[in-house]
Amino acid sequence: MLIVMHHHANQAQIDLVLAAVEAMGLKAEPIPGSLRTAIGVLGNQGYVDDSTIRTLPGVRETIHVSKPYKLVSRDFHPAATIVEVAGVRFGDGERPVMIAGPCSIETESQMLAAAEQVKTAGAQMLRGGAFKPRTGPHSFQGLGIEGLKYLQQAGQVSGLPVVTEVMRIEQLEVVCRHADMLQVGARNMQNFDLLKEVGRSGHPVLLKRGMSATLEEFLAAAEYIVAEGNNRVVLCERGIRTFEKATRNTLDLSVVPLICEMSHLPIIVDPSHATGKRALVPVMSKAALVAGAHGLMVEVHPDPAKALCDGAQSLDGGSFAGLMTELNGLIDYLKTG
Amino acid sequence: MLIVMHHHANQAQIDLVLAAVEAMGLKAEPIPGSLRTAIGVLGNQGYVDDSTIRTLPGVRETIHVSKPYKLVSRDFHPAATIVEVAGVRFGDGERPVMIAGPCSIETESQMLAAAEQVKTAGAQMLRGGAFKPRTGPHSFQGLGIEGLKYLQQAGQVSGLPVVTEVMRIEQLEVVCRHADMLQVGARNMQNFDLLKEVGRSGHPVLLKRGMSATLEEFLAAAEYIVAEGNNRVVLCERGIRTFEKATRNTLDLSVVPLICEMSHLPIIVDPSHATGKRALVPVMSKAALVAGAHGLMVEVHPDPAKALCDGAQSLDGGSFAGLMTELNGLIDYLKTG
Amino acid sequence: MLIVMHHHANQAQIDLVLAAVEAMGLKAEPIPGSLRTAIGVLGNQGYVDDSTIRTLPGVRETIHVSKPYKLVSRDFHPAATIVEVAGVRFGDGERPVMIAGPCSIETESQMLAAAEQVKTAGAQMLRGGAFKPRTGPHSFQGLGIEGLKYLQQAGQVSGLPVVTEVMRIEQLEVVCRHADMLQVGARNMQNFDLLKEVGRSGHPVLLKRGMSATLEEFLAAAEYIVAEGNNRVVLCERGIRTFEKATRNTLDLSVVPLICEMSHLPIIVDPSHATGKRALVPVMSKAALVAGAHGLMVEVHPDPAKALCDGAQSLDGGSFAGLMTELNGLIDYLKTG
Amino acid sequence: MLIVMHHHANQAQIDLVLAAVEAMGLKAEPIPGSLRTAIGVLGNQGYVDDSTIRTLPGVRETIHVSKPYKLVSRDFHPAATIVEVAGVRFGDGERPVMIAGPCSIETESQMLAAAEQVKTAGAQMLRGGAFKPRTGPHSFQGLGIEGLKYLQQAGQVSGLPVVTEVMRIEQLEVVCRHADMLQVGARNMQNFDLLKEVGRSGHPVLLKRGMSATLEEFLAAAEYIVAEGNNRVVLCERGIRTFEKATRNTLDLSVVPLICEMSHLPIIVDPSHATGKRALVPVMSKAALVAGAHGLMVEVHPDPAKALCDGAQSLDGGSFAGLMTELNGLIDYLKTG
Repeated sequence: MLIVMHHHANQAQIDLVLAAVEAMGLKAEPIPGSLRTAIGVLGNQGYVDDSTIRTLPGVRETIHVSKPYKLVSRDFHPAATIVEVAGVRFGDGERPVMIAGPCSIETESQMLAAAEQVKTAGAQMLRGGAFKPRTGPHSFQGLGIEGLKYLQQAGQVSGLPVVTEVMRIEQLEVVCRHADMLQVGARNMQNFDLLKEVGRSGHPVLLKRGMSATLEEFLAAAEYIVAEGNNRVVLCERGIRTFEKATRNTLDLSVVPLICEMSHLPIIVDPSHATGKRALVPVMSKAALVAGAHGLMVEVHPDPAKALCDGAQSLDGGSFAGLMTELNGLIDYLKTG
Repeated sequence: MLIVMHHHANQAQIDLVLAAVEAMGLKAEPIPGSLRTAIGVLGNQGYVDDSTIRTLPGVRETIHVSKPYKLVSRDFHPAATIVEVAGVRFGDGERPVMIAGPCSIETESQMLAAAEQVKTAGAQMLRGGAFKPRTGPHSFQGLGIEGLKYLQQAGQVSGLPVVTEVMRIEQLEVVCRHADMLQVGARNMQNFDLLKEVGRSGHPVLLKRGMSATLEEFLAAAEYIVAEGNNRVVLCERGIRTFEKATRNTLDLSVVPLICEMSHLPIIVDPSHATGKRALVPVMSKAALVAGAHGLMVEVHPDPAKALCDGAQSLDGGSFAGLMTELNGLIDYLKTG
Repeated sequence: MLIVMHHHANQAQIDLVLAAVEAMGLKAEPIPGSLRTAIGVLGNQGYVDDSTIRTLPGVRETIHVSKPYKLVSRDFHPAATIVEVAGVRFGDGERPVMIAGPCSIETESQMLAAAEQVKTAGAQMLRGGAFKPRTGPHSFQGLGIEGLKYLQQAGQVSGLPVVTEVMRIEQLEVVCRHADMLQVGARNMQNFDLLKEVGRSGHPVLLKRGMSATLEEFLAAAEYIVAEGNNRVVLCERGIRTFEKATRNTLDLSVVPLICEMSHLPIIVDPSHATGKRALVPVMSKAALVAGAHGLMVEVHPDPAKALCDGAQSLDGGSFAGLMTELNGLIDYLKTG
Repeated sequence: MLIVMHHHANQAQIDLVLAAVEAMGLKAEPIPGSLRTAIGVLGNQGYVDDSTIRTLPGVRETIHVSKPYKLVSRDFHPAATIVEVAGVRFGDGERPVMIAGPCSIETESQMLAAAEQVKTAGAQMLRGGAFKPRTGPHSFQGLGIEGLKYLQQAGQVSGLPVVTEVMRIEQLEVVCRHADMLQVGARNMQNFDLLKEVGRSGHPVLLKRGMSATLEEFLAAAEYIVAEGNNRVVLCERGIRTFEKATRNTLDLSVVPLICEMSHLPIIVDPSHATGKRALVPVMSKAALVAGAHGLMVEVHPDPAKALCDGAQSLDGGSFAGLMTELNGLIDYLKTG
């Protein structure tokens, strides 16, 4: 940490800061400058809570050098983590994983049809929501446990591992029983108790970025899971909230290579929620792969016009099959090109 | 809902949309314009899921007229709601309520000292966090149930009702036992299951705005609680996330009069989290009252320099007493002025 | 400046950075930490361009301590600047200045009517736009020089100094001839050539914050004007662009006390553009004064329903007179209270 | 336009709105709903100024269907526009154009070296800034006209057309004389007078998106240029300002396919300014091409470590040559794949 003193701070104020740092068991190193003095703080093993220091007279600001995460950092764990979910592998050197399926599970036949379509098209995993986070309480909230059963059945029939969102801790046990991978949604990215319990479950986790989460907060959320001994975490960029409303969210593709540099965890992209527009999904899927994503999660519905949720961003089976052909060609090109 | 067709949409496409609207049990009214046709949708009792419509050929966009909330709306419930918490009353016509106390509960003596200071200064409620949402898992996470006991005790000794955050559903019962009012934090504003359970508890709720929540989403979150039969909800503006980093968040004071116009629920302001800077708390507290806030929540710590959390935004007892004198003068002026 | 090295940076990389800093004529001070090394840069007289340094191997980030402005900083110029415009004084210790008038100048009679209304209500300055920045080219672009004449005439008849926007350098001379104060609009806050010329004119300037300008960029824009020898600059907060669309912009009132702390220049608030809603103007005007604003700029139109521009955020003469009564009461209270 | 009345609006209020719309020469069509009445406005040839209407009693909101641009819209001009700059062609069906060169022109030899490097690597156009928009006045502001001469010379020697920024109207004539294409920078995207003059010049224009400009505002800015009879406009996405600071800006790649759908003008991407990090430039360049960009603008400097401006985001000649090889392979793949 670096403590920057005010231009007009006097020696007594500087001494007080030095004493406060040492009272915290750390070493303080004054760096006198031509305009002002800065004080380097040494000896900390991680993030320093600077509340005490920032309140002292003469202090202008404190600047953190350490980050609120460590276990997920590439700095301390240079080798890439490969996350395996029932035989499907996410991570550096692996072929990008295609996850597809409807936004919400609606009926047994819808899930079976969707599973067959995505399997035939070549996807490696099946998605579907049984518990749906909706802005207002008067919208369809998902089928719940009944939906989980349809999802599991569709996964077994098609031979695809399944991923689904868990929204509350009490659902964790039943979701673990029916699904191969747990999704933590964007709205729950800082539901820290859920993160801890998901960590303790040991189950593979798909962690979506919160809609206003910085990269640092995103990695710190993953740190909560990994700190419980579960490093089977796949990150997912799904767009952030900005002033621009032409798309549902603003897909922040640059974080894909940044996360690859900063963390050893795999990162995938959800172009459906990011853009909210079906016509943009294929092109942004390809851009995501080129940006280095370890996979994609795409919404596919047998009949998007009748979808109970997010139909406007869902592909139908035929469009998805066409997209998969294009994506496979691109993946092959990127490997050899 | 209004459906706007593309400039070049043909009659067959328009007919398809009309049929789709009618298949949803609603009435469609074409509005031919000089440049394009729009179609009004009539007969819906609330928010229409437009996924089906938006996917039809020739449709450019759909525009919602209804909102995802109704119970919290002033439109349907013109009279102001007064929320009472152990004798303290929030709402139109009531004197603004001052809630004060430390960010986190640290020790028995800290809470007793804080309670005495805020009581003496004239606050009506005591706050303190036992379960702390922290960005990273390596920061202090709060004292938990032990903290709840210190808080309750400090409330009893000082005669102040207490409010504290509940972070997970399993904590709800114990928090209800120790606290007079439940706080739902910004990071949990869209933890919809928690909102439902908090609604079912019937306990008074302090609902903080999510850091990237629109006004509409904020009110829709309150709708989740009220839809469970619990209208004892006080809203709290605490700053939003923007590009500006000179303050911790950007205090969005304009929402105070807007919420007063749009909803019958009380709205208070938290200047401590909004600004993150102690020096800004007094001035923004006054601005919030002038903007029409039904109360304030201010962080006060007996010794901010030693606070385990957010010391830089906490006032000490003396500063808070001085602030209360100023605020009481201002409140009296606003009443009579 | 502080240079933070990667965890794994080796001594050769550190030495290279030290050499590069010294090649820039500055002094480098290594600060070895337990996890990584940081390097303090000393001896710079202002902002250091860190492009060279950031590109060296082993460098993780550079952190600036100095700011891109100095002349406008309170650090180097502690005494408040009072800006005088034809006898009207803006700044610490002065009564807040009320500027009022229509968004755009439409006719001679409209300006005369507006001037009389705002004068009678007690405003100290008159505003009106002759050159209007409009999002699209098909909207009303202002009356131009003819408008300037109406404005000047209305100012003379009412005895109020006038302020109006200058949009291009060629207009500067004519605007200076007709107006007592030049306004630089939000969209031109980083039109650096215009800032320089406005600085050279020596005329008083009302500089509006850009809609996505940080506080630092806002002050750096003022620095452009002051660097030309013109310190007659009044800053104006008018709302920033965020994800929230319930108001036209998000009024960032916290910058008012922050600017008072960081700069010696006066700062006023424009609640009309910030909120975009007439009903919010009175309440946010009061909040702005309480936050410490040295003045307000409010849109007033004799007949808002017929305004060619921004009618929805304009007050009529009667409402403005009522508001002035309230504001004067509040100002008196704040002075003595 | 659609006018939405309040739930409780009475018939007299509705009649008043109908009369007001008709007074504007437009046709009003009431659409009674179960909860409220809406009123469709027909007959307008473009964007309607709704200020008058929004102020009437009983009106809740007005919703625009028309846009503030028309000439640049694909709706009214379905065929793609090909912009030709001294033989280089931007647009649908053309090979993406690579523009490269230093951020700022520093010396004759630097420009000649840069031009040779980018030409050899296969770029089709040369860039370089003579007039530099810098946040603060104390940073290097560019060489001015001397720089323009170096740029032109380097273009002639290498046989590459050149593009450079024009910051003020008085520079327009000299910049047109030395450069093949005019750049309007992000900070000037809403400098409407500059847009008009650039339009009148007839010269090809590279229009960069403002850092907080919506897609609609971006297209409306282009409309200013085209409305002057100059349709030789190439748009450029260069990242937007958001809460995320891990990159310099947030590259909004989704606007590339959206603009291709909404406008007939070509759109290119500047990955250097968008990310601010050299390591991200190659990967985001490829993603941009896959997203459908009609070209790229990349910063290349013979010696980035010595660059006077933005060295951290500049590639050296060797890296750029390597990138061009990759990009050419990708372009060939995309054409045939």
